[in-house]
Amino acid sequence: MKGQTMAAIAAVEAHLGANGRLPLNVKFLIEGSEEIGSRNLRELIREQRERLACDCCLNVDSGLSSPEVPEIKYALRGNARMDLTVLGPRADVHSGTFGGTIHNPAQALCELIAGMHDEHGRITLPGFYDRVRALEPGEREELARLARDERHFLEATGVPALWGEPGFTPYERTTARPTVELTAIEAGPTGGGAMSIVPARARASFLMRLVPDQDPEECRQSMLRYLEAHAPADIGWELKYVAGVRASLFDRRGPGVAALQRALQAAWGVPAAFARMGGSIGAVSHLHEEMGVATLLTGFGAPDSNIHGPNERLHIPTWRKGIAALTRFFAEAATG
Amino acid sequence: MKGQTMAAIAAVEAHLGANGRLPLNVKFLIEGSEEIGSRNLRELIREQRERLACDCCLNVDSGLSSPEVPEIKYALRGNARMDLTVLGPRADVHSGTFGGTIHNPAQALCELIAGMHDEHGRITLPGFYDRVRALEPGEREELARLARDERHFLEATGVPALWGEPGFTPYERTTARPTVELTAIEAGPTGGGAMSIVPARARASFLMRLVPDQDPEECRQSMLRYLEAHAPADIGWELKYVAGVRASLFDRRGPGVAALQRALQAAWGVPAAFARMGGSIGAVSHLHEEMGVATLLTGFGAPDSNIHGPNERLHIPTWRKGIAALTRFFAEAATG
Repeated sequence: MKGQTMAAIAAVEAHLGANGRLPLNVKFLIEGSEEIGSRNLRELIREQRERLACDCCLNVDSGLSSPEVPEIKYALRGNARMDLTVLGPRADVHSGTFGGTIHNPAQALCELIAGMHDEHGRITLPGFYDRVRALEPGEREELARLARDERHFLEATGVPALWGEPGFTPYERTTARPTVELTAIEAGPTGGGAMSIVPARARASFLMRLVPDQDPEECRQSMLRYLEAHAPADIGWELKYVAGVRASLFDRRGPGVAALQRALQAAWGVPAAFARMGGSIGAVSHLHEEMGVATLLTGFGAPDSNIHGPNERLHIPTWRKGIAALTRFFAEAATG
Repeated sequence: MKGQTMAAIAAVEAHLGANGRLPLNVKFLIEGSEEIGSRNLRELIREQRERLACDCCLNVDSGLSSPEVPEIKYALRGNARMDLTVLGPRADVHSGTFGGTIHNPAQALCELIAGMHDEHGRITLPGFYDRVRALEPGEREELARLARDERHFLEATGVPALWGEPGFTPYERTTARPTVELTAIEAGPTGGGAMSIVPARARASFLMRLVPDQDPEECRQSMLRYLEAHAPADIGWELKYVAGVRASLFDRRGPGVAALQRALQAAWGVPAAFARMGGSIGAVSHLHEEMGVATLLTGFGAPDSNIHGPNERLHIPTWRKGIAALTRFFAEAATG
């Protein structure tokens, strides 16, 4: 969604073009490593915290449930990335000579993965849900008013039926509940080859989505305890922690929120909705943890913008409304 | 093991060099598609059955349990190859936006694979064991005398412990019992990438090793019935049958066997052992089924020859003994 960052820049340019100056101080923090976990950003923020000092941050990296209603996001999920490798024979071996007498590491990996959720879709890793903060009273009703209902998720993905943790709506499951997602798995010759082997190793990548007050390191420990309890003695395994950030939850009456509400309402003609976001933005988490500063999180991506997928896109008229709203926001924020 | 084919050619050359002629008629049938299932060979044999007419076939594509004892193989496992694809969202989707509300196809594939064996390593596909022929009385004792014991399998693979169907020795499990082996699995970005997606699809390749009297097509049906019973309604799936051959089991008193016994004993100084082979050789199966002709199956690969793996190799002194034995075999077979 780099096009959304351009909307913020366009709003700054609008002020500079019209008045030769901005109505308030703006500092840019630009990073290029978000998709690989913002690993070095945290240290940079710590080192530069005096230069970065501010009342609030503005981040334009989220989407809309409906193009007709602007949104302010007050919650982001955190994440924890880890890779699991299961080790079998020291090299690929002939399946006719050794198959059936050694535990196939790809099969063992599948067995471990299958056990990470129960038959209802609830995560079984020990202690994984211990710190999960429940939704506030009234919050479920408020979120239910957003357009992301069951039909939205069915249409956006094309799956024949939805799936997930019982007791929560699809939108709650994707924003206010944690997940353990298998993002990649690999063993043996890929690309449809027909080698007659038992592979020497199998690898899986996991991306956990975390909610307040889960801690990425504690979630790694949950995975580790699960593996220690369930990995069979006839294989080897290695768990490698890649990166992680905590979830963020902001005060809906914090600095800049009222200004952003006024600006969005002016551009769309309807009041902005408060929503949770299912994704993770390392910068938001790190700015919060290192500087105690809250981020105003908004954005203009339509539900069908296919983020992180092929043909990712922005709806141009909605994007133009976004530029107008952000231009107005700078003026509103300057007047308090 | 193309070096073993060269041993047979060297034996023919030895006769031609010494006497200018062979003591019996030899026809060569050379194929290059064994590793991808010998798909076109069967039709060729059917078309050319008159030109290929013979008393017996000689195939030098097997190995030895110990370099000190020559072996004649009287049983080969068949196989059935199939690919399973599990279909999720129509494209890769963002794991923060959709994860937790749709069934991850890679996870669903792992769940299906995990259910294909019970906790003891026995295959659960409906009807899979129905036609499996039991070992003959006395056969288990005979096979137990071969050097492929538990320690052999541990040392050859380097795994911390063996695995497999209860009630059978490791050697029996790899030669006289059927298996369902996962040879490859693939979903999401491979190569260790950290994309934040739920993959659109996941693919697994299976190689079943079959024993008499299993039928590859019936085994495909077993897999299909398992999938129809266990695949959840929230994903799509496709099972593609690739290729298969039936197992072979030959009479230990059939044509040419006594000549091969004499020749092997002359070269090694000890009697040849009868053994089963865990792999599959499409040519042996097709010649048996299309022409009713038995194959004399021997070979000189050491247990550590690492067949189908990296650094596959032959032990040169054993290979030379093999050339001597095959040279003698042509003479012995000519005298009856």
